[in-house]
This record gives sequence, C-alpha cells and structure tokens, in this order.
Amino acid sequence: MNDNPLSRFAGSVYADRLDRAAAAAAAGDVDGLLITPGPDLRYLIGSTAASFERLTCLIIPADGSTPTLLVPRLELAGLGDSAVAELDVPVLDWVDGDDPYALVAATLGGTRAAVADATPALHVIPLAQTFGALPVLATPMLRQLRMIKDRAETDELRRAGAAIDRVHARMAELLRPGRTEAEVGADIADAIVAEGHTAAAFVIVGSGRHGADPHHEVSDKPIEPGEVVVIDIGGPLRSGYNSDCTRTYVLGEPSATVTQQYAVLERAQAAARAAARPGITAEGLDAVAREVLMQAGLADKFIHRTGHGIGLSVHEEPYIVAGSPLELTAGMAFSIEPGIYFPGAWGARIEDIVVLTADGCELLNQRPRELVVLD
Amino acid sequence: MNDNPLSRFAGSVYADRLDRAAAAAAAGDVDGLLITPGPDLRYLIGSTAASFERLTCLIIPADGSTPTLLVPRLELAGLGDSAVAELDVPVLDWVDGDDPYALVAATLGGTRAAVADATPALHVIPLAQTFGALPVLATPMLRQLRMIKDRAETDELRRAGAAIDRVHARMAELLRPGRTEAEVGADIADAIVAEGHTAAAFVIVGSGRHGADPHHEVSDKPIEPGEVVVIDIGGPLRSGYNSDCTRTYVLGEPSATVTQQYAVLERAQAAARAAARPGITAEGLDAVAREVLMQAGLADKFIHRTGHGIGLSVHEEPYIVAGSPLELTAGMAFSIEPGIYFPGAWGARIEDIVVLTADGCELLNQRPRELVVLD
Repeated sequence: MNDNPLSRFAGSVYADRLDRAAAAAAAGDVDGLLITPGPDLRYLIGSTAASFERLTCLIIPADGSTPTLLVPRLELAGLGDSAVAELDVPVLDWVDGDDPYALVAATLGGTRAAVADATPALHVIPLAQTFGALPVLATPMLRQLRMIKDRAETDELRRAGAAIDRVHARMAELLRPGRTEAEVGADIADAIVAEGHTAAAFVIVGSGRHGADPHHEVSDKPIEPGEVVVIDIGGPLRSGYNSDCTRTYVLGEPSATVTQQYAVLERAQAAARAAARPGITAEGLDAVAREVLMQAGLADKFIHRTGHGIGLSVHEEPYIVAGSPLELTAGMAFSIEPGIYFPGAWGARIEDIVVLTADGCELLNQRPRELVVLD
Repeated sequence: MNDNPLSRFAGSVYADRLDRAAAAAAAGDVDGLLITPGPDLRYLIGSTAASFERLTCLIIPADGSTPTLLVPRLELAGLGDSAVAELDVPVLDWVDGDDPYALVAATLGGTRAAVADATPALHVIPLAQTFGALPVLATPMLRQLRMIKDRAETDELRRAGAAIDRVHARMAELLRPGRTEAEVGADIADAIVAEGHTAAAFVIVGSGRHGADPHHEVSDKPIEPGEVVVIDIGGPLRSGYNSDCTRTYVLGEPSATVTQQYAVLERAQAAARAAARPGITAEGLDAVAREVLMQAGLADKFIHRTGHGIGLSVHEEPYIVAGSPLELTAGMAFSIEPGIYFPGAWGARIEDIVVLTADGCELLNQRPRELVVLD
C-alpha cells in the first residue's frame, strides 16, 4: 500500500483535460460546458467541493478561451484541495444578492450550454430561464474523456481493486451463521476503511432470499447455516477512484441445484471476461454473458445489465448493456457482473473490474470466482 | 432514548401529505408534481429509495386523482420500507428499453410539471424535451407543507437535538490539545452514531485559524493549547430527521479580545432566540442577530446568513436570510447560528435548533452557550 495516497494528480493532468473538454464542447456544437460539483468537476480540476443550494460552476468555453470558476464567496476556502491555483483558471466569487445564473451567462457569452448529469433542477431550471434555452447534457461530450483511463487513473483503480480483494479475503472470519446481515455489513464497512478506502460506499450482504434482490443492502435478518450469500462491496480511495467487487459465498455445502446453476453463472462471467477486448461493442459483450445463461435456460434469471464503467463514480460510462452500440476501446474500465436471481429463494453474482488493454483486458480483482464454501 | 426508533410514520400521515401536495400543485397552477428520490419523496411516501441513473418518480396529479409511482423494475424491492403498500398508490414499473419520460407524461396527462430541487439534469432535460416545456421547481409548492412540522416531526427533531447535545457533553474528553482535528473528528463521528444517529452527516472541527472558515471540516492540523475551536456537528436519526448544533470551545484561558468578541456573539445569538416567534420575517430575524454585531463593529465578521430550516434535510426552508420576506409561523424548525470569523486567526459560532411555538420558540439544544473552557 501507498502510505501517502494521492488526493489529486499534478496540475498538468487537469490542464490537459480542460483543453480536451473545450474541444469536445466545440465538437458537440455548444458554446461551452457548465460543470457543477460532482465527479465531472473533480475530473476536470481535482476539486472535491460539495455544494448544493448555492451555485458553484466551472464554465468552459468551447472556443478554447480560459475557463472560469464561479464560486460562492463563502465556499472559496473549499477550493484549497483543487488544482485551481496551479491552473490558469480565474475564480469569480459571488455573494447572496448576486444573480449567479446571470454571471454564468455573461461569462459564457453564448446561450447553447451543456450541463453535467448531476446538476440539480434547482440550478438547471434558472440556467434554462436565463439562457432562454434548454441546456443539453454534457455527458456525451465528456464521456470519451472520462471513459478512457490514463495511467495514473488505472494505477488508482488497480490499488482500489487490491484493497477490496483484501476485504473479500477476510470473509471467512466475518461471515458466520447466526450473525445478522447488518452485523456482518458493519464489520465489512470497517474492513473496507481499514484496507485503504476513505469510506464504504456500499455494502450488500444478501443472504438466502435477500440474495435474489440485486439492490438489497443489509437487514436485521440472521444468516442461516446453508444459505448462499452475495457480498457486493466497494468504496473510494483518497483519490476518489472506486473499487467494486462481488463474490458469492455459501455457509456449508451447497445443494446440487445451486452448484449446477452457479457453475453456469461462472461460465457466463468467464466468457464475458474472455470476450472483453477492444473492438467488441457494449451490447455485444452483454450478449456474451447472457447467451451462456440462455443456453442453460437461465436467461430470465439475469435481470440486469452485465456491467458499468467505474472511476471517480462507481457507476459511469461505459454501460455494458443491451442496446448500446458503443465500441469498447483500450483504457476503458468497467465491471463484468452477471448474476442469477431466484425470487424468494437465493441469488448469486460474480463481479470483477477490468481495464481493456491493447488485446484483451487486465483483471483488477483476483479473488477466486467459484462459490466459496465457508463453514 | 427510544429503543425502537421509527423509520417512518403511519400511512395516514403520508395520505394526508399527498392530498395537501396535490392541492398545493393545483394552487401553483401546474398539472402535477414529479418527485424523484430525495427528501421530498421521503416526506411524501416515506421512501428512502436512492436512485440516480434510472428514473424513479412519484407523479402527483394536481386534480386530486390518485398518485402513481414509476419505478425501475430492478428497484421495486427498494419500496419495501415505504408507505406505498399502505397507501392507495399504484406502482408502474419499467425496464431498460422503455421510455420512462414518456410514461411520466402519459400518466400525468398534462405538460405543466413541477420537479423537486434535487432532480438531476439527467432527468430534468429529457422530461423537458418530452413535455415540450421547461418544468418549474416544486419547492415553492411543497415548502409550506415541509416547513410546518407536525407533532411527530417535532418529536423526532427534539430527539435529534437531545442526541447531539449528548455528544457535545462529551467534548471535554474528546477535544484535547495535541490531537489532530481529524482524530477528534473521528471520535466525534463515533459518538454521534453511539448517541442514536444512523450516521455522522457532518463534523466540523475548526481549530485556530481553521475556525475562521465556516465550511472547514477537519484536517491533520494538531490542535494547539490556547486555541479557540468551533465544533459544528449533526446527523440523521433513523427517521431521517436531523440534528445540527455548534458550540465553540477554547483550550485554556481565552485572550481578553476573544472573550470580549465572543460575548458580543453570545448576545447576538440570544437576541435572535428572543426574537424568534410567529410574525417576524426571515429577514427581520436575520437582522436582529446582525444588528447586535454591527453595534459592536463586527458586522463584517458575520459572513453568512443567520440560519436554515431543518427536518429531513439538514438545510431546507425557511432560510433565515437577508432579502427573505417570508413570515415565520408556528411549527417552523430552523437554526439560529450567527458566527464571527477573523481570517488567519480564529472564529466562533453558536448554533441552536428552535421550533416556533404559538408565542415564541422551543429550544431543541440545551448545552451551555458560553465559550466553553477546556483544559
């Protein structure tokens, strides 16, 4: 483990990203990008600022002129951890009584704006009113930048993967019959932090019938001997890059049916890993996992997409989903996580994060993928 | 403490709120309210569902006909904790491939929609495109409902206030010179949970010069003997209702200047508490605190508003701020928290949550408000 983890990268990394974002805005036929706090802002200037009621907004003109950061005066100090001081980005502060939307419009010098996905309606609607035009979403313009991870980002994702693997390695000690899901989950959350994350972003302990709900978190249900348990966990490193890894455990010997159906899932996940390489489309990769399950009559038990991109957000582009013709390319990082769900009975999922290389993919999670028997 | 804390209220509470929300929508001259996950959804149906990429939306027609809850099929199980089953609210599920925005439009049967503040641009923009009209914000319609706390809500806020008071009562043990702000903050976060909150939503330990930044959180700076330290902390109970309380401590005897300036702050906060009663406006109450500081030449050291409403959100209406002519009425719950900030040197803030009664206010925080000397 790195004893001095990064909270952000060097200023030059962000300068390059800002240039590419402006070019993407120009190609997207807007006058500029308006980026409020969230993963896009962190990606572009390394700022972890959180702001809701008062508008903070990075204005990136599409013509390549210098971006401007609009910030409530009260929140200026929150820029201290960002790359703003290293970059040539002027900071425009405002106070209660100013109209921040008019300031954005005056700074942008155009009415065709693109906003980040996460921008709340509280700001989107007055921006639209001020501009006299509905903004478009910036994601299509930023996704090509954010999807392709550079070396520093891949290093962070690799560290995150190793950290969450160490948590799964402790499952025999934490996951015991008689404990409740919530008790196990609290210990897992502590282990996630102890292994180098700044927080446990999510902890799913889906035992028995709860494993059949992909979005179950934890409950006060005790875990019974013999149950299959889905453990889907992750969180951010200090740099903001996330881990996300699922393994499925069984507390005692599994039934013949569970063993047989889990084996199909394992083949489906392995097939998708083997197929993950530049050139395949997102829908094509989704279909690989689905096809293996379909051949075994389990297609209707796989009720979600095969995967999601990961980086500063736990869920981001590219989504590995039916209907997406996106061609996957080297540098993309995403999950491969088929699952099978039997309502009222049990469920299973296997999830690894992969990064596409020139001719295949690097696996960022290394724990065994078989149904792990704990006793 | 209540050993069996509420996660939500009885179904009848939500049925009444839905009726009043529909009436507010009608009065607001829209066809209905579109409420995505967040505090407004929790307020209206007791759902703690979190959802971002896929649209979850409660559709409340202004004509008083039955609301409908649109939910991604994958997230149906997340409704289990809500009041939906008790209410007569049909659930309309959708799967990848459906157009959820068209489903909303078809269900609402009108094009004039109001959306919650927190609805992300990811959903606001396609909704606007589908409706062919920019939605308006639902907050002006919902705020009268959400601002006036009923008895069950006030009970929860009172419990939250008592819980955070117990954390402040432990400060002599936690806040010691030589420890870093982060170390003290971690212990405070544990104490917040130990005293009955489900999480520490925020922990500000602003020692010395850091106290001059109202938005400082914690840092690796050790706390020095003699420093003034601002401790602003809070979090939600299981019901979702929040605490928020600030006290200022000094590690040793304060200087004559600190003592004198803090005394002015104490008078300002006491004057605002005394003035908090039905009939005063938000700006009028803000001016009361500001006037005391102005008389002592400290007006420019008070760089934020006097307070904010609190409930299911830590910050919500009413905001006690210059420029707000809102008349305060019985049942409103908000903070009274003037502060003084000397950049590069020190800061202080005193914050209580109050609930307006028929002829004054009830204080939900009871810890001493003087500059607490720890040694």
